[in-house]
Amino acid sequence: MNHTKPALRVAMIGYAFMGAAHSQGWRTAPHVFDLPLDVRMQVVVGRHAERVQEAAERLGWAESATDWREVVSRDDIDLVDICTPGDSHAEIAVAALQAGKHVLVEKPMANTVAEAEAMAEAAAQARTAGVRSMVGFTNRRVPAVALGRRLIEQGFVGQVHHVRAQYLQDWIVDPETPLSWRLQKERAQTGPLGDLGAHCVDTALFWTGDAITEVVASMRTFVPERPVEGDHQGLTFAATSSDRGPVTVEDAASFLAHFASGAEGVFETTRFAAGRKNALRIEVNGSKGSIAFDYEEMNVLHVHDHSAGPDTAGFHRVLATEPTHPYVSAWWPAGHGLGYDHAFSNQVRDLVTAIADGTDPSPSFADGLVVQRVLGAVEASAARRGWQTV
Amino acid sequence: MNHTKPALRVAMIGYAFMGAAHSQGWRTAPHVFDLPLDVRMQVVVGRHAERVQEAAERLGWAESATDWREVVSRDDIDLVDICTPGDSHAEIAVAALQAGKHVLVEKPMANTVAEAEAMAEAAAQARTAGVRSMVGFTNRRVPAVALGRRLIEQGFVGQVHHVRAQYLQDWIVDPETPLSWRLQKERAQTGPLGDLGAHCVDTALFWTGDAITEVVASMRTFVPERPVEGDHQGLTFAATSSDRGPVTVEDAASFLAHFASGAEGVFETTRFAAGRKNALRIEVNGSKGSIAFDYEEMNVLHVHDHSAGPDTAGFHRVLATEPTHPYVSAWWPAGHGLGYDHAFSNQVRDLVTAIADGTDPSPSFADGLVVQRVLGAVEASAARRGWQTV
Amino acid sequence: MNHTKPALRVAMIGYAFMGAAHSQGWRTAPHVFDLPLDVRMQVVVGRHAERVQEAAERLGWAESATDWREVVSRDDIDLVDICTPGDSHAEIAVAALQAGKHVLVEKPMANTVAEAEAMAEAAAQARTAGVRSMVGFTNRRVPAVALGRRLIEQGFVGQVHHVRAQYLQDWIVDPETPLSWRLQKERAQTGPLGDLGAHCVDTALFWTGDAITEVVASMRTFVPERPVEGDHQGLTFAATSSDRGPVTVEDAASFLAHFASGAEGVFETTRFAAGRKNALRIEVNGSKGSIAFDYEEMNVLHVHDHSAGPDTAGFHRVLATEPTHPYVSAWWPAGHGLGYDHAFSNQVRDLVTAIADGTDPSPSFADGLVVQRVLGAVEASAARRGWQTV
Amino acid sequence: MNHTKPALRVAMIGYAFMGAAHSQGWRTAPHVFDLPLDVRMQVVVGRHAERVQEAAERLGWAESATDWREVVSRDDIDLVDICTPGDSHAEIAVAALQAGKHVLVEKPMANTVAEAEAMAEAAAQARTAGVRSMVGFTNRRVPAVALGRRLIEQGFVGQVHHVRAQYLQDWIVDPETPLSWRLQKERAQTGPLGDLGAHCVDTALFWTGDAITEVVASMRTFVPERPVEGDHQGLTFAATSSDRGPVTVEDAASFLAHFASGAEGVFETTRFAAGRKNALRIEVNGSKGSIAFDYEEMNVLHVHDHSAGPDTAGFHRVLATEPTHPYVSAWWPAGHGLGYDHAFSNQVRDLVTAIADGTDPSPSFADGLVVQRVLGAVEASAARRGWQTV
Repeated sequence: MNHTKPALRVAMIGYAFMGAAHSQGWRTAPHVFDLPLDVRMQVVVGRHAERVQEAAERLGWAESATDWREVVSRDDIDLVDICTPGDSHAEIAVAALQAGKHVLVEKPMANTVAEAEAMAEAAAQARTAGVRSMVGFTNRRVPAVALGRRLIEQGFVGQVHHVRAQYLQDWIVDPETPLSWRLQKERAQTGPLGDLGAHCVDTALFWTGDAITEVVASMRTFVPERPVEGDHQGLTFAATSSDRGPVTVEDAASFLAHFASGAEGVFETTRFAAGRKNALRIEVNGSKGSIAFDYEEMNVLHVHDHSAGPDTAGFHRVLATEPTHPYVSAWWPAGHGLGYDHAFSNQVRDLVTAIADGTDPSPSFADGLVVQRVLGAVEASAARRGWQTV
Repeated sequence: MNHTKPALRVAMIGYAFMGAAHSQGWRTAPHVFDLPLDVRMQVVVGRHAERVQEAAERLGWAESATDWREVVSRDDIDLVDICTPGDSHAEIAVAALQAGKHVLVEKPMANTVAEAEAMAEAAAQARTAGVRSMVGFTNRRVPAVALGRRLIEQGFVGQVHHVRAQYLQDWIVDPETPLSWRLQKERAQTGPLGDLGAHCVDTALFWTGDAITEVVASMRTFVPERPVEGDHQGLTFAATSSDRGPVTVEDAASFLAHFASGAEGVFETTRFAAGRKNALRIEVNGSKGSIAFDYEEMNVLHVHDHSAGPDTAGFHRVLATEPTHPYVSAWWPAGHGLGYDHAFSNQVRDLVTAIADGTDPSPSFADGLVVQRVLGAVEASAARRGWQTV
Repeated sequence: MNHTKPALRVAMIGYAFMGAAHSQGWRTAPHVFDLPLDVRMQVVVGRHAERVQEAAERLGWAESATDWREVVSRDDIDLVDICTPGDSHAEIAVAALQAGKHVLVEKPMANTVAEAEAMAEAAAQARTAGVRSMVGFTNRRVPAVALGRRLIEQGFVGQVHHVRAQYLQDWIVDPETPLSWRLQKERAQTGPLGDLGAHCVDTALFWTGDAITEVVASMRTFVPERPVEGDHQGLTFAATSSDRGPVTVEDAASFLAHFASGAEGVFETTRFAAGRKNALRIEVNGSKGSIAFDYEEMNVLHVHDHSAGPDTAGFHRVLATEPTHPYVSAWWPAGHGLGYDHAFSNQVRDLVTAIADGTDPSPSFADGLVVQRVLGAVEASAARRGWQTV
Repeated sequence: MNHTKPALRVAMIGYAFMGAAHSQGWRTAPHVFDLPLDVRMQVVVGRHAERVQEAAERLGWAESATDWREVVSRDDIDLVDICTPGDSHAEIAVAALQAGKHVLVEKPMANTVAEAEAMAEAAAQARTAGVRSMVGFTNRRVPAVALGRRLIEQGFVGQVHHVRAQYLQDWIVDPETPLSWRLQKERAQTGPLGDLGAHCVDTALFWTGDAITEVVASMRTFVPERPVEGDHQGLTFAATSSDRGPVTVEDAASFLAHFASGAEGVFETTRFAAGRKNALRIEVNGSKGSIAFDYEEMNVLHVHDHSAGPDTAGFHRVLATEPTHPYVSAWWPAGHGLGYDHAFSNQVRDLVTAIADGTDPSPSFADGLVVQRVLGAVEASAARRGWQTV
C-alpha cells in the first residue's frame, strides 16, 4: 500500500457472516479505488481466542484480540467496525466513540430505540471532536440503488405517491430449521423486521428523502417452536439436537406507512416466502415516473418515464453497470455485473473519503435512529393493534 | 346455432366497456365450446334509445330496449346480465331474480354491504326455484388463474403463510384526467378499492379457499379536484371543460389482512402507479411452494416447488396455454396466448353449463357478499383508523 | 349487421386449426371495428360433407360445401379465404382469382417457388380488374409487431446492422409423436422452415423493409421415423398405431442471411426446442436503437433507444396495449392483453378496408413470393451445402 | 497468510483490464477458499516501468518488472499468469512452460491455430515434468454456468439437439469510437470472434462435452474506418484525434455449426447489438430438457424439465446462489449474488488446487486448441464462403 498516505487503522469487532463481508470490503477497496488514506486491517476481535485468530488469518487482519473494550481504546486504532449481533452495538459504539474512534456499525444500528438514541447522542458529541460515525446500510452502495437515488434526486419521479417495499426470504420455511440468535428476542429483538425491514425502511428514506410519520403493523410467528440451535454457517443451518425451544421473534412483519409528503407506503418482510431468496424489492411511483429495484437482479434498475410518448413508454431495464453509474468506473466494463460484497468495498470508499475530507459520512447515526424509530413504531403498532406515530 | 338445444335467451343491461366485453363472451363462447344450451343474444338495455340501438347492432344483440324493468320481466328472457355501474346492481339483480331470471352480475357485486346482502338473500330465495346467479369475477376464468387454483387445491403450496396481492393502474396519474363516474362516490362508492380491490380479494379467496377475518386499511386521495368529466372511451379520458369538481373516492387503498388460517395478507390497489397498466398481481407463499400471477403477463403462471432439489429449484414460468390447462383445449395450440376477452367466453361456458346441469355456478352471490364485506371492512377501517373485523 | 353497407360474401376453404382461427376473425371483426363492408360468412368448404357441415355450424358459416371449384365460381361469393395445407394453395388461389374473387391465402403462401410465382402472376392479372389478394402473415397484425414496424419506419433503430430471428417450438421432441401431414414432404414441402420460418422471414422483411440477397443453411431431421399418424387436434397429437413411417421434412432449419442493406441475419426454426412453446422472436439492432419481440409475451415490445443518456438507457418493456398502438383502440383498455386470434380480426379489418377503398392489401402475393424465394433458397442451400443467392 | 503451506509464487504479465481482474482473483481467493498453497503475488510485468510499478502498488503485487523473459525464468516464480493481448500469448507461454513454470493464459488462448498448437505441444511436454497449464475461460467458473454443466453431465437435458449461443455487446456502435488494439488484426487477429466467440464456443463445448465438426460463417465490418485510438479504460474509449485508420477485424461474426453428436449449433457474436452490454447467452435444448444462461443475469440459470407434468412445466429461474451450487458455499448466503470478478477467484481456487493435487487443471491447452481450431475454421469459412471442416 501507499505509505505516503495517512494511515487508517481499523479494528473489527465480530467476524461471522457480516465480518467476512466487511473484511472483503476493507481488503478490496484500496486496490480498486484511489483512497485518500492507507487502510490497515489492524485487529479483529472475538470472544473465542482460537477462533478469532483463525478468522484473522483467513480474513486478512494483522492480529486478533478477545477484549473489545481494550481494543477500542488502543492508541493504534483509528476506526472501529462493529459486526456483532445487534444487542451489543450500542455498548461498543458508545465506548469507541468516547475513545475518539471513528465508528462504522452494521445495521440494524441497535435493537431498541433507546440504544439508538444513546448511540446518536454519543455520535453527536464525538462529532464535535472530528470523530465520524456511519451506519452500514450497505445497500445504499449497490450501484443500481445509488442510481435510483440519483434519479429521484434529479426529479425523475416527481411527487412521490407510492413506496412499495418488500424483503422476502425463505430460509426458515422448514419448521425443522433450528433456532439461532436471529430467532431469539434477547439477541435480535425482532425477526425480519430488524434484519430485513431495516433495509426496506432505510432504502425508502434514502430514495425519497422523505419521513415516515405513522405506521400500522402486523407481526406473526408461524412456527412457534424449533429445534435448539445446531451448527450454522451464514444464513444456513442444520439441526443437531431434538430439543426444542420457543421462537421469540416474529416470522413475518408487514406494515402500512404514511409519509410526511402524503405518500402511501406498504412494507412487508418475511422469512417464509418460499422461493424468494433475497428479494429486497422497492418501487417508488411518482407523478412523473417510477423506479423499481429487486436485489435478486441486483445489477438492474427498472425505471419508467411517465412523460414518454406511448409508443416507447414502459419500464426500462437499466443495467446499472455503466462507467457513469455510481461506483462503477472503478470496477469492470459495462455489463460485467457486481455482487453482494462490492457494496462493502464501495462503502469503505465512501467512509474513508469522508474521514479524510473531514465530512460526515452518510447514513449517520442520526439517520440510523430515524430508521430505528420506525421499526420501534412498527413493533408498538403490532403490540397494541393500531396506528402508531413514529 | 344448433336449434335442437334448449334456448338460453339473454338480456344485457348496460353496454359500455363491460357490456362490450360481456358481448364478446356471449358471441364467441358458442363457437368455441360445445355449450349445452343455445345462447341467444336477445336484447341489450340502455337509457338512451338511439345509442343503445347502435350498440345492439354493433355488439350483436337482436334488439334494444330502454326500460330494464320491463325487460327483466319479459317471458322471452331467461338470463339477465348486469353490466351497469355498481350503484344499480342490487335493484336490477333483485328484480330479475324475483322475476325468475338467472342473473350474471358484473363485479363489484354491489356498492355496499347492505345491497350485497339483499342480493344474496334474493339469490338464495330464487335458488329454491332453480334460478341461478353468479358474480362476474371474470379473472377466475383466466387460464393461468384457474390453473393456480387447481394447483393450490391439489396441495401444491401446502399451508399458506402469505397472500400478497396488488392491483396497480396509472390512468389518473395526470391531475388533468377528468372526473368520471368512477371517481364519484354516489356512483362508484369507492375508487380502486371496489374496482380493483374486489378482484384482488376475490382472487385471494378463490386461490386459498380461506376467509379474511380482519383488516386494517389506509385510503388516500392524491388529487382532490379534477376537470369535470369530458369524453371517455373505456378507461381513457380527455378533458372538455375547465370546470373542476371534487374527487369523492380514494385514489389508492391498501390494507393488511388476517386470514382465518393464520395467513398474513398484504393488499394494495391504486390508479397512481405510473407505468403499471393493469398489474393485478397475486402471490401465495406456503409451506410447500409458492404461486404467483401478474395480469400484465396474463398467459403465465409462476410456480415454485419448495421440495425440489436446490440444483433446479426456482420459480417456473409456466405458459398457461397447454391443452390440459383450464379452458385451453377449446382454444388454440400451446404457446398461442389468450387475451382479456377470452375469460368472458370461458365465463359464459361455465355459467351456461351450470344452468343446463342445474348446479350452482361459482362465484355465487354469497361469495360476492363475502368479498363485499371485506371491502366494507376496509372502508370502515380506513374511516376509523384501526383494525376492523370483517 | 348493418345492411346498408355493401356486402362482402366470404367462402372459406379448409376448417381445421387455421380455419377456426380465420372464422374467429371473420365473426368478431364486424363487432369490434366499424367495417366499411357487411361481412357475410357464406360458406365453408371441406372434403367430408358431414364434418364440414358440423364445422359450418360450430364456426358460424351459413352453409357448407365439398367442392371448392364450384364454390370459387359462385356468383354469391366475393372473397375466398384459403386455409388448407400448403400443397393446395396455388390451385385454389389461381382459380379463385381467375373467377374474379378476392383472395386471402394462409401462409405459407405455397409449397414451392414455382407455385408462388404462378399465384403472384395470377394476382397481378386479377388486380387489373380490381381483384385484391393478400397473404395471411397474421403476425403483422399483432399490435406489438405492428408497433415495431411503425417505430422502425420512423427511424427509431437507424441503420439496421443485425436481424436475429427464431421460431422455437417443442411439440415433436417426443419421438413417439406421430406423423402428420406437417411431417410429410408431399403435403408440407418442408418442416419448420415453411411453417415457422415463413413467419420469421416475413416479419424480418416487414420490420426492416429490406431484402435478403443470399443465405447459407443447415437442415436436420433428428427423428427420422415416427408412428403413423393418429388423432390430432391443432398441433397436439396422440399415437393410435405401432406402424412407423419416415419423416420426410426437416425437424430444424437454421440459416445465415445477408440483407441488401448490408445487415447480417441469423435465423433459426425448430420443433425441438424443449420448453419453448411458440417462441417467435425477432430482434433488430441498428445504429440508433434496437427492437425485440417474443410471441410468448405477445403483448410486449422491447425497445432500446441508443441515444438515451446512460442513467436511463436500457430495453423498455412496452405493453403494446395503449389506445394509440396499432389496432388497440378498437379493443380493450390499456393493460388488457390481446391473444392469438385478435390478430385474425385485425387482419380482416385491414383486408376489408382495403377492398372497400380499392387499394391493395398488404402483404401482397408479390410479398409472399419474396418470402417463398427466401425459403426456396434456404432449401437449396441446405441441399448443396453452400451459400445460395435468393 | 498461512506460511505453513507451500508457497505458490505468481508472476503476472500484463496489467490492463484482464490484469486487474486476475489480480482481484489472486488477492481474494486465499481469503475465501481454504487453498492448499500459499499464494504470493510476486511480480507484475509490463513494458513501461513507471506504469507497471504503479500497477503493482495498486493491484497488490510485491514488485514490478519490465522484461517478461527474465521474469519467467526466475527461480522464485512458480506460476506465470499471462494477461497480455493475444498476439504475445504463445511466445510467453512457451517460454514459461519451458522454464518449468505453471501457466495460466487468458483467453483467447492464441491468435492463430499454429500458435495454439505450439502452446499445446509445449504444455504436453511440460506436463511430463509435472508442470500445469490452463486457459482462462473464466466463465466456466461462474456458478450458474458450472451448475449448467453439472446438470447436463447428470443427464438433465438428455440427447442434445440444439446449441444456441450468442455474445452480444454494443460498445462500438458509435462510428466515432476510436480504433484500439482490439480492432486491429495484427494485435487481435479477429474482432468479436476471438474476443467473444471464444467464450461462446468454449461454453458450448464445456456444457455439452461434444465436438464441433464443421462450420459455415459470415463476418462483417460495418464501420470500416475509425478515429485513431485515443484514451481507453477497460472497454470504454474516447477519441483524442481526428485521424482515421482502417478497422481490420470484423465487427460481427456468426456461424452455423454441426456437432459430432448430430446437434445443430447457431452462434452469433457482435459489438453492434445496441442495448446489449454483455449478453453472453447460451441455450441447450435436448430430448429431456433445456438449460439457458445469459451473462446479463449472471446469477441465474434457466432450466426446463421436459418430463415435468404440464401443470408446472416451464423454465425455472434458478438463482445459482445456493450453498450447494458450485463455488457458492465459500461466498455469501443464498440470494446474495456474485459478480464478474468472483469467477476469477473461483478460477484461482481450481488452478491452485490442481497444482497442489498434481492433477491437470481444466480447461487445458489442448481444450484451448480445440476452441482455437473452431475459430480458425470460422475465419476460413468466412473467407472462402462455404462450409469448413474443423
